[in-house]
Amino acid sequence: MSLGPNRKVVLAARPEGMPQASDFRLEEESPASLEDGQVRVAVEVVSIDAFIRTTLEEVSYHPSVALGGTVMAFCAGRVVESRAEGFAPGDEVHGPMGAQTLAVVPAMLVQKADPSRAPARAHLGVLGATTGLTAYMGVRHVGRVEPGEVFVVSAAAGAVGSLAGQIAKLDGARVIGIAGGPDKTRYLVEELGFEGAIDYKGEDVAARLRELAPDGVDVFFDNVGGELLDVVLDQIREGSRIVICGAISQYHGDMSQGVRGPALYLRLAERHARMEGFAVTHFADRYGEAEEALAGWRSSGEIRLDEHVEKGLENFGETLRMLFTGGHTGKLLLEI
Amino acid sequence: MSLGPNRKVVLAARPEGMPQASDFRLEEESPASLEDGQVRVAVEVVSIDAFIRTTLEEVSYHPSVALGGTVMAFCAGRVVESRAEGFAPGDEVHGPMGAQTLAVVPAMLVQKADPSRAPARAHLGVLGATTGLTAYMGVRHVGRVEPGEVFVVSAAAGAVGSLAGQIAKLDGARVIGIAGGPDKTRYLVEELGFEGAIDYKGEDVAARLRELAPDGVDVFFDNVGGELLDVVLDQIREGSRIVICGAISQYHGDMSQGVRGPALYLRLAERHARMEGFAVTHFADRYGEAEEALAGWRSSGEIRLDEHVEKGLENFGETLRMLFTGGHTGKLLLEI
Repeated sequence: MSLGPNRKVVLAARPEGMPQASDFRLEEESPASLEDGQVRVAVEVVSIDAFIRTTLEEVSYHPSVALGGTVMAFCAGRVVESRAEGFAPGDEVHGPMGAQTLAVVPAMLVQKADPSRAPARAHLGVLGATTGLTAYMGVRHVGRVEPGEVFVVSAAAGAVGSLAGQIAKLDGARVIGIAGGPDKTRYLVEELGFEGAIDYKGEDVAARLRELAPDGVDVFFDNVGGELLDVVLDQIREGSRIVICGAISQYHGDMSQGVRGPALYLRLAERHARMEGFAVTHFADRYGEAEEALAGWRSSGEIRLDEHVEKGLENFGETLRMLFTGGHTGKLLLEI
Repeated sequence: MSLGPNRKVVLAARPEGMPQASDFRLEEESPASLEDGQVRVAVEVVSIDAFIRTTLEEVSYHPSVALGGTVMAFCAGRVVESRAEGFAPGDEVHGPMGAQTLAVVPAMLVQKADPSRAPARAHLGVLGATTGLTAYMGVRHVGRVEPGEVFVVSAAAGAVGSLAGQIAKLDGARVIGIAGGPDKTRYLVEELGFEGAIDYKGEDVAARLRELAPDGVDVFFDNVGGELLDVVLDQIREGSRIVICGAISQYHGDMSQGVRGPALYLRLAERHARMEGFAVTHFADRYGEAEEALAGWRSSGEIRLDEHVEKGLENFGETLRMLFTGGHTGKLLLEI
């Protein structure tokens, strides 16, 4: 079999603040030969996730990418060559393969999709670890929302946010989303059925939240951090739970120095409230449960995740930047 | 019966930052006549607690004291006159009577001590709501420390801190206290039996904590906030609990503007940890359970709370200031 070269996105410079196109460059290399236990995957689609930004820091709690190294990303694609048992050319797989066209990875790092349940690409979305599974764990096992409670989610039109809101709705909560711009808030209410949505770019979030949830907030699923976290903390009820899933507003700077902590954290003491953080990997023992629930809701149409698709590996930097500037709705993907 | 005048501490000016003697003045007034349901109490001892500082703000989550109003405080004393059923002259009582010599209060606001169990004064200390009960609820019902876990407490030589550490020890934890100065750290280790103590004034807290708890912290009972909270957050383990009891380092300024939020709060997400705040009043249904346990430990000598006693109502401002400058060990009281 004749393979073209592998094209890959490598880290050219560590971003200062917001990632830029010039922080990345494309490189070509001849395909490496496979070792035992490895597969070669033709990557079809790259998932653009917030964690990628943190892997670009020199020191990070995710593994850090070296200068000149291939940028880490979750991908879906098709096996083109295998030296691993149970994997054959044509198999649809997904996993952390990196932003490249022809990934050589240990087969144990990727998973075969079960096409009778969902295509590999769905594992970057509704069934993705950093999207659907994260939303599921945050709602069910961290926030533990109860029927009738007020559930607020930030970055609500993003992949995790929109899924978290939909899962909370399925669990009986009154869901309010916070997102940027009237198109997104309309989407949340009209398309996803949220009870309310707040446009943080055009509206006074504190005032609107008081209107929509006059008795306060029971669960806040926070993907944003910064000032917004304080605005919601100010309106939590006694016994509320703040789910710390991410802090996308704080990822653009040097995270070890520049994070703005929640100045109103003493509301937790005043109102006997809890702020609990998590990463999806802390719930690895519940992946099966979550995938089963999510696959069911996806098939029945009870939850949906719209895709925002950009194309071309050469647009990786711009697409990653879009994740932080909020220019998308739903799951951000890069097709290659 | 002939009564002298009531002498009381009134708020002369709202403190800016640290309270000063000049923020308070003494006033005398003729004793008011009792109404039905009221008792007159000769106050013997005033409890100096951190919450007093917040009642001096114009806007506070505790009830706010008006300029010229009597400063709120918990006290112990003896009934001298009663128009309330079940209360007679000579009864030992404790409760929120204010910083004054002859308090007229609704009997339902105060409680009679059971001298067979503990004197009224103990209800400002080991059995006090803002001291022993607070420590108990924070350890047992918020931090839920388990045997063998590493329990760290800040302001560890203060009333709440020293009791929290002792209760955690009784529950089988390895207890490390953080306090200011070698006298206090010696006290914690030699007198109270803590496994370790860190002098935040003279030692590098991060380095010493890493030495004393190389595998990280399971429970942090925080009374201090500010930079110290970040230092400990940086060393929490997966699954740890941060108990937000107070933030004495942040009480001196304008609390609505000036609180420093924990910049490392994202450690909660990295390590699936929880930050939970409380006030003792959130656990009112457990006061009985807590008082029974605390009275037992007090009688058996399993826990102790040393007193730092100042004298004279005219020294109220200076004594309150001492609470924030750390010039005391154990429970700070003002005898009058």
